[in-house]
Amino acid sequence: MNDIFLKNYPLLITNVKVAGLPADIFIDENGVIAAVGEHARKQHKGDAEFIIDGDGAIAMPGLVNTHTHAAMTLLRGYADDMVLQEWLNKKIWPLESHLTGSDVYWGTRLACLEMIRTGTTGFNDMYFFMEDAARAVAETGIRAVLCYGFIDLGSPEKREAECRATERLVAHIRSLDNPRIRAAAGPHAPYTVSKEGLRWCAEFAAEQQIGIHIHVSETEKEVSDSVAQHGKRPVAVLDECGILSSRTVAAHCCWLDEPECRLFAQRGVHVSHNPTSNMKLATNRVMPYHWLKAAGANITLGTDGCSSNNNLDMFEAMKTASLLQKFSWNDPTLLSAPEALQMATSAGSRALGFGTGTLATGSPADIVLVSSRTACNVPMHNPVSNIVYSCSGSAVETVICNGKVLMLEREVPYEREILAGAQEAASGLVQRAAQS
Amino acid sequence: MNDIFLKNYPLLITNVKVAGLPADIFIDENGVIAAVGEHARKQHKGDAEFIIDGDGAIAMPGLVNTHTHAAMTLLRGYADDMVLQEWLNKKIWPLESHLTGSDVYWGTRLACLEMIRTGTTGFNDMYFFMEDAARAVAETGIRAVLCYGFIDLGSPEKREAECRATERLVAHIRSLDNPRIRAAAGPHAPYTVSKEGLRWCAEFAAEQQIGIHIHVSETEKEVSDSVAQHGKRPVAVLDECGILSSRTVAAHCCWLDEPECRLFAQRGVHVSHNPTSNMKLATNRVMPYHWLKAAGANITLGTDGCSSNNNLDMFEAMKTASLLQKFSWNDPTLLSAPEALQMATSAGSRALGFGTGTLATGSPADIVLVSSRTACNVPMHNPVSNIVYSCSGSAVETVICNGKVLMLEREVPYEREILAGAQEAASGLVQRAAQS
Repeated sequence: MNDIFLKNYPLLITNVKVAGLPADIFIDENGVIAAVGEHARKQHKGDAEFIIDGDGAIAMPGLVNTHTHAAMTLLRGYADDMVLQEWLNKKIWPLESHLTGSDVYWGTRLACLEMIRTGTTGFNDMYFFMEDAARAVAETGIRAVLCYGFIDLGSPEKREAECRATERLVAHIRSLDNPRIRAAAGPHAPYTVSKEGLRWCAEFAAEQQIGIHIHVSETEKEVSDSVAQHGKRPVAVLDECGILSSRTVAAHCCWLDEPECRLFAQRGVHVSHNPTSNMKLATNRVMPYHWLKAAGANITLGTDGCSSNNNLDMFEAMKTASLLQKFSWNDPTLLSAPEALQMATSAGSRALGFGTGTLATGSPADIVLVSSRTACNVPMHNPVSNIVYSCSGSAVETVICNGKVLMLEREVPYEREILAGAQEAASGLVQRAAQS
Repeated sequence: MNDIFLKNYPLLITNVKVAGLPADIFIDENGVIAAVGEHARKQHKGDAEFIIDGDGAIAMPGLVNTHTHAAMTLLRGYADDMVLQEWLNKKIWPLESHLTGSDVYWGTRLACLEMIRTGTTGFNDMYFFMEDAARAVAETGIRAVLCYGFIDLGSPEKREAECRATERLVAHIRSLDNPRIRAAAGPHAPYTVSKEGLRWCAEFAAEQQIGIHIHVSETEKEVSDSVAQHGKRPVAVLDECGILSSRTVAAHCCWLDEPECRLFAQRGVHVSHNPTSNMKLATNRVMPYHWLKAAGANITLGTDGCSSNNNLDMFEAMKTASLLQKFSWNDPTLLSAPEALQMATSAGSRALGFGTGTLATGSPADIVLVSSRTACNVPMHNPVSNIVYSCSGSAVETVICNGKVLMLEREVPYEREILAGAQEAASGLVQRAAQS
C-alpha cells in the first residue's frame, strides 16, 4: 500500500459524507475530482487504481492558510510572552540573522508536515531563502504561493538588492514548472518598504501576473506613524503605489477603518485574518470582519508564523477567528461556523488561485477526510459546527492534494526523518546564535 | 497487555522528561507517586508489575477542569452563533427539559472519554441527574467533584425540593465511598438562587465540609440587575449569604471589579476562568487576571459545557486563556505559558482538593504523557511553551489517574461503545424534543 504516496493514481474514496450526505468521490489521474455523489462508486469502480475506505468520515476541501512564515516553525517556543519590539529586537531578529538555506528547507518541511497533519493543502508564504522553501514544498506535495520578504527600509542600495532577489525567486519558481508552486511579490509592509519599493513590487507583479503578499495595519502604531510620516494612513500609501489589486493578499488588517474596508472590496484585495497571532501579540483590535463583509471583501484565514501562534492548525484558527470576532465586537452571531469554514476553504483558494476550494466535479482534488469516530465529532448534530468549534486538526485522517495522497489514515511518509532534521536544524541555529 | 486497564498495579514509567530533565516514575499499588527521577528505575524495577516506555515523552500532572456541565457534550453543535437569551430559551432549555438520567450517563461518559484523550484527570461538574453522572465517572476512572445545579428562582417550594435534591446527591456520593468522586453544593448563580437558598447552600456545605460550585458575574447584566434588585453587586450578595469560602469555586467572574478581586483572595475563593465560553457567548469582558493575581487569589481554568465551547480540551483552554488575557488587557506579557500550565494543574488541584497537582513523590499519581515525537513538540526550545501554545490535547499519549492507567498509547478501553451510546442518546433526545 505504501505505493499510494508515490504519484497520482485514479482514486476512489468510498463511504464519506459530503455536505452531510453519503457520497463517494472519484479522482482521475490528473488530480481532478471527476465525480462526487452516490453514483461515483458504480460509475468509476473499475477505473480506480486505489480505493480509500472513508469509514464514514466527513470529506471537506483542503484548508488554505493565507499568511505564513513557514520556516519560523524552527523558532516555535523560542520566545513568548514578550512585548513586540523587545521580542523582535532581542530574540527573533538575532536568531534569524543566523538562518541558512538549509534551516529554511527543514523549517518549511516541518511546517508542511504539520499542515498536512492538520488538513491544510495550500499556503501563502513570505520569508527568506525561498528557493529552499520551494524545494521543501515540492517534496512534501502541498500547494504554496511563495514570496521573498522585500524590505528596503528606504535605502536605494538595499532596494536594488531586494528587486533582484524578487526577480531571481520568480524566475526560479517559473523554472520549476510545478503546478502546485507559484511565486508572488512580497513587499513586507508599508513601514518597512519605501514608496519606490512598493511601486516596483506593484509594477513587477502586474507585469508578471503574480500575486502580492503584504502585512497591512497590524498595529495602531503603524497607522499613526504613517500619518506622521506621509500625512496619510498606510492603506492610502499602498493605494497610491498601486499595491491594492485583486492579486493582493493583505495580512492582519486589524486597524482598517470603514472606508478602508470599502476600498479593499472595490480593489478586490483579499484580506488574511490572523486572529491567534493578533491575540498573542496583543494588537488591541481585530480585523473588522463586519465592515469587510458588508463591503463584500474576500476574507480569508491565516495562522501567521509559528513564533507568534505557535502552530499551523487551521482548525484552531477557524475557531479562534469566530470566537475572537464575537468577543471583540460584542456580537455572538458574528462569523458563524459556516462562514469560518468558507474563509478557510473557498475564500482562501480564491485569494491564491488554487481553484474553487470546494468538492465540485472538475475542481482540483484537494480533499481532507475528518474522522467521524472521534469524541469531537460525537454527537453530529451539525458537522460544520463540529469541524469549526469542536475538532482540532488532529481529527484529520487522510489528506489529498492535487489528487495525490499526502496522508493516509494518519500515516505521512518520512515523518520521523522530517522531525529529526528540523530538530537538528533548530538546535544548530540556536547554538550558532549563542556563539556569536 | 489489556489487563493494564483493569486495576491499580505498581507501575514504572521509563524514559520521560519531568520539568525538562530525563526521569523515570514509579507508582505504587495505592496509586501514589513513590519515586521520580533518574534513580527511580534502579530502585523500583523489581517492584513494578507493568513498565510503560515513555519513549522520550513529556510527563506532566493531569490537567484539572474546574468548570463543566459534562453531560452537555450531548448538545455539542446543537445550536451556535446565537444571542445568549435566545439560545437558552429557544434551543438549550427546551432540549434539556427532555433529558433523562440515561442521557446524563452517556453524556458524562462521552465527556470523560474526551477529557481522558486530552489529558484531563479531574473536573468540577454541575448538572442534573448527578447520580448517573457519578456512575459514568466511577466507570471511566477519572476524578470529579459533582454537584446538583440548585435553582429556586425565589420560590420557597422549589427551594425545598432543591435542598432535598442536594442532600440526596451528597448522601449518595458518600455512600459510593470512591476516593475519586466527591460532592459539592451547587447554587447555580446569584440571579437564579434566592438569598435563602444561597444561605442554605453555604451552611450545608460548611456542615458537610464539602465544596461550593457557583457561576459568578458572567455577564454585565447580572451585575446591573443585582444592583437594581438588591442594591448591591452579586459578589456582595454572595458574601452576605456566606457563599465566599476557601471551599468555593466561582466560575467565569468576567465582571469582577478590583475590590471584589481582593475580597475573593481574602476569602480564599478559587476562580475558574472560562475563556472559550466567554468569547463564544460574547461576555464583552474577561476575568481580570491581573487584579486577581495581584490580590493573590487562586486562579484556575475551566472549559464550561460543550454547548458553549464546544470541546473539553484543556490544552486549548490554556492557550485561549493566555491569548485572551494578553489581547483583552492589551499586554502580551500577561498570563505567561508557565502561569497557564499552573492554572490548569496545581491551582485546579488545590481548588478541588485533588492533591498537589505536581509530580512530587507522595502525590496521587495523576500523570499525563505528552508525545515528543509530534510536530507540535518539534523543535523543543521550551517544553512548557510547546504544551501551552503549540499542542492540542491530541499530543497526549498516555493518561494515569490515581495510579490507574486510563489511556495507553492512545488506546482507551470501550471507546467505540461510548461513542455509539452517546450518539444514540443524543439522537433520541433531539427526537423526543421534536415530537413534543
